Order: sequence, then C-alpha cells, then structure tokens
Amino acid sequence: MRLYTYREQPDGIDRIGVELVPGSLYALQDFGMQFADMNDLICHITPEQMDKLRTAPQNAVPIPLDRVCCRAPIPHPMQDVVCLGINYAAHYKEAGRFDKEAFGDRPKAIYFSKRVNEANWDGGTIPLYDGLVDSLDYEVELGVILGKDAWNVPAERAQEYIFGYTIINDVSARNLQTGHKQWYFGKSLDGYTPIGPCIVTADEIAYPPVLGIRCSVNGQLRQNGSTGDLITTISEIIAELSRGMMLKAGTIIATGTPAGVGMGMQPPCFLQAGDVVTCEIDKIGTLTNVVGNS
Amino acid sequence: MRLYTYREQPDGIDRIGVELVPGSLYALQDFGMQFADMNDLICHITPEQMDKLRTAPQNAVPIPLDRVCCRAPIPHPMQDVVCLGINYAAHYKEAGRFDKEAFGDRPKAIYFSKRVNEANWDGGTIPLYDGLVDSLDYEVELGVILGKDAWNVPAERAQEYIFGYTIINDVSARNLQTGHKQWYFGKSLDGYTPIGPCIVTADEIAYPPVLGIRCSVNGQLRQNGSTGDLITTISEIIAELSRGMMLKAGTIIATGTPAGVGMGMQPPCFLQAGDVVTCEIDKIGTLTNVVGNS
Repeated sequence: MRLYTYREQPDGIDRIGVELVPGSLYALQDFGMQFADMNDLICHITPEQMDKLRTAPQNAVPIPLDRVCCRAPIPHPMQDVVCLGINYAAHYKEAGRFDKEAFGDRPKAIYFSKRVNEANWDGGTIPLYDGLVDSLDYEVELGVILGKDAWNVPAERAQEYIFGYTIINDVSARNLQTGHKQWYFGKSLDGYTPIGPCIVTADEIAYPPVLGIRCSVNGQLRQNGSTGDLITTISEIIAELSRGMMLKAGTIIATGTPAGVGMGMQPPCFLQAGDVVTCEIDKIGTLTNVVGNS
Repeated sequence: MRLYTYREQPDGIDRIGVELVPGSLYALQDFGMQFADMNDLICHITPEQMDKLRTAPQNAVPIPLDRVCCRAPIPHPMQDVVCLGINYAAHYKEAGRFDKEAFGDRPKAIYFSKRVNEANWDGGTIPLYDGLVDSLDYEVELGVILGKDAWNVPAERAQEYIFGYTIINDVSARNLQTGHKQWYFGKSLDGYTPIGPCIVTADEIAYPPVLGIRCSVNGQLRQNGSTGDLITTISEIIAELSRGMMLKAGTIIATGTPAGVGMGMQPPCFLQAGDVVTCEIDKIGTLTNVVGNS
C-alpha cells in the first residue's frame, strides 16, 4: 500500500490518501477512518484497518494525484530523524577523499540526527542560504519508518517493527557539517529534509530491501546504487540503537547514501540555484526538488 | 517564577505547579489556568497570564514540594535537545587530553543533539546499560528554553526569545560517543537526560546569566565553574543556529559543561552503580540522580 499526505484546496487541510491505482488517491475518510495525521495513523492503526485500506472503498471517487498538492508523507516527524553516515563502501571512499578528518574513519556505524521542523516535499524548494552555506549537496537515502516501539530488539526480529519505507534526500551543507565538527547543524537547516513522495508499507517490499537507488541532477545520473549494499544493515541499526534508545513508533531512520554525491566528484561540484535534484528508489517512486531561494 | 511539573497521587497525572514560597507549589488550576503540559504553557501562555502567576491565588492551599513526585519540568521535549560540545575552555583542554581525535579540535561551536524520549528527573535513576556502556560520565549544563519561534535573530535580540532556564545533566557514554564518531548515540540513551528540578523564568536571572555551576559525585565536588564562561554565548548560539534553523518555542538548548567531568580526571574515573550525582546551578537549584540498573 502507498500512503500519501496531500493538501486539498481550498481548505488547505492536510489529508491522508491511499494510492491503490497508480495516479489516484482514495481519501482516508472514504474508508470510514480518521486519523489526525500520518503519525497518528502509524501509531494507532490496527491490522484490520490496514487490511481494509487494501481494497477500494465502494462508491468513492478517487482524486487524481496531479490535482492535489502532495506534502511529505510525514510533514512533522515526532522526533529528529535518525541518520546513518558513511553507510555504503563506495561513499565511504569518496567522502574520505573529500575530507579525511571528517569522513575518513568509520570503525562502527555513525549515527547522527537531523532536526526537521517541517519535512520538505516532492516539488518543494531546497533553500540556498546564501552567505551561510557555500557547498550544498544531495544524498538520496532509503528511509525506514517504524510502526511500533522498539526496545532491545534482536536483529532477527527487527523486520517486525518496520511500518514502511520512503525516500529521503539528506540535504547537507558541507561547510557547516565539517566546519562545526559534529554534523547536526549542517544537516538540520529548514528545508533540508525532503521526504516522499509516499510511504510504501513494509509488506510490499521483500526484506531486506534490495532496491535500485539513484539520484540525478538536471537529468544527469549522479548516484546509482542498491539498498542491498548497506554496511550496517537495517536490522543491525534497529538492534544496536534499541539496546539503549527506545525507537518509538513513528521513528524515521535515514539509512545512508551511496556514492556519487557532489563532494565526491573531482573536483567537487555543489548544487546551485535552479538545479533540479531527483531522488529515486525502485518500488517507491521519485522525489524531485529544485534548488532556490525560498 | 519557578515552574515545576509534578505527579500527584493517586491519579498519577502530571500537573504544573508554581513555587512562589520556597518548598511549596500552587497548582496551575488554582490560578484559573489550564495547559495540557509545560510545552503547551510555554507555547501559549500570554504575558498577562504570566503576570497572574506571580501572585499567590486567593483561598488556595499550596502543596508541600516534598509531598509530590517531581518530574522533569518538560517531561517530553517536543524535539531533540540541541547541545553544545566543548563550550568551556578548561573542559576543552581536559577533553582533548582524554581523546585528542574526538575532542581536540574546536574551530567553531560544536552542535549535536540528544534524543529524549522522556526526560529523567530530580531523583530519577541513571541506567548503567551493562554490556553496552563502560564509561558513564556526567556533565552539568545550563539549559536554555526558548519561549517563541526564533528565526534569523540577531545576537543582540536573542535574549527576547528566552522563556527560562533549567539544569541539564548531559549524561554521556564515552565509549559510544567516541567509538561511533558522531556523538548522538552515546548521548541519547533513555534516562541520559535528567532535567530539573524546575524552570526559572528569564526575568529572574540577569542576562547573560553568570551563575555558579557545579557537579558533585557522592558529595565530592567535581565540576565548579561559571555560566559566564561559555566560549560561544547563548546569544551567539541562538543567532548562529537561527540563520538556517527555526528554533521553535519549546526548544531546549544545553549550553555545554565546565571542566571536571570523569573523563577529564587522571586517570579517568567513570560513574558506577550507586553513585549519587548532584548538579547545581545558583538561583536554579539542584538536580540529583543515582546511578543504577533500572
């Protein structure tokens, strides 16, 4: 199942939609269900309700996707997004070449977080922050969304805690990320976390996910990897963190980016105003953003 | 004004209390006010309501503080706590001596975050996490709580955005903090963020705060500094971050710890089961936690 958050005009209220036929959405209320938002749905939907969402509701008219304004599926994450740094071997190499001190050593999984006041969305603008950011970069990542509280979960049971998957662009200001030593500030600027276009529920993707993951800038393919190549796997991430951190339902984990980011090019090539960044993961879709000033 | 969150028995509901006379609390409802929790109060209280809280309500009987179970003033922060690393000169030196690679270089302010599922409280237990953590350490810090959304705030106006102050113990698992390169995991374990005992509103403390800040373990004074000695000041922190990150009302900033942490001792001396850690800041109070297994 594919779940969207969309904003319908003229009331401007965010609603949840289910894409059963490509290109059109059934509103949640057509199934006789109501949740305040996607966080509420993830935390409280029952397995029976999930099943009900798999069949088109009778007498309901689906809304064409191109008629609505899509938001991030989770516009307001309940907590900062948990991120993995340096989690694909080829990216480890390119990042270390760019800045050995910041990225050249990865003895264990590297965890950091992104504050997300409001997730950016498919079609949203990535702000340039002229004067603050001089090295804006993209990072396509598989996002994992947890469906129930995970505490001390063994790796072999981690799969049971996954609600679904999405695409995350872990937009990064390299000068802030490396200049301030810890990566938090350079990763957490407003607009730096596009998420979307939807959540694909876990039952639709074989576990562990082995999916083509790509990013292109202005149509030029830059990143081209497979989510099967994570150094620290999704199961290992959930198992390791949940030994001491309750990963609550609704937690979003950005699992790291494959090779091909701007800082990895020779010479490095960062995003400029007007650039179009398209992130893509098989079976999930595409997430496109334009770099701009607003 | 001093604001507490306390849990009254037998209903076990968290309530907000105002300490007008040392040692006793007036319940918020005695003032004819109702907020869902401290976050709600911080985000929505009006200046007139704040004024009203400064005078004891007529015919109300205050509750002795020692009769209630105090929670953290903000039991569930709305977002991860924003933290400053290496923000006092003498701590910079001791940390670099312990691990030059992790702490020896601080060209600019170091920002990271702590996930706080539930803030620990005055009297709460700091878990040991045997087998996961082998180098448990304390860090007393002045916590700054913002009262309104801060966006692109010049340093000279930062003060206007501060709701109040509290004490934070930025408990740290040094092996996870340094072993995983980025500090997030080693700082974010459940129970690792004691906050309290209360929030002292900004009007009660001259700005910038120059307050004695101390931490003792089992009665032995370990940290003894002044919040006037921050390398990056509160105004500079708010100004720098808000250039690109909206710091929303309710944001908690832990401003860094002075010298005297366990990893700074020669040889390093980490917390053990049964240790009693007392953090203290002048004009705010004390925050005491015992190290244990639960």
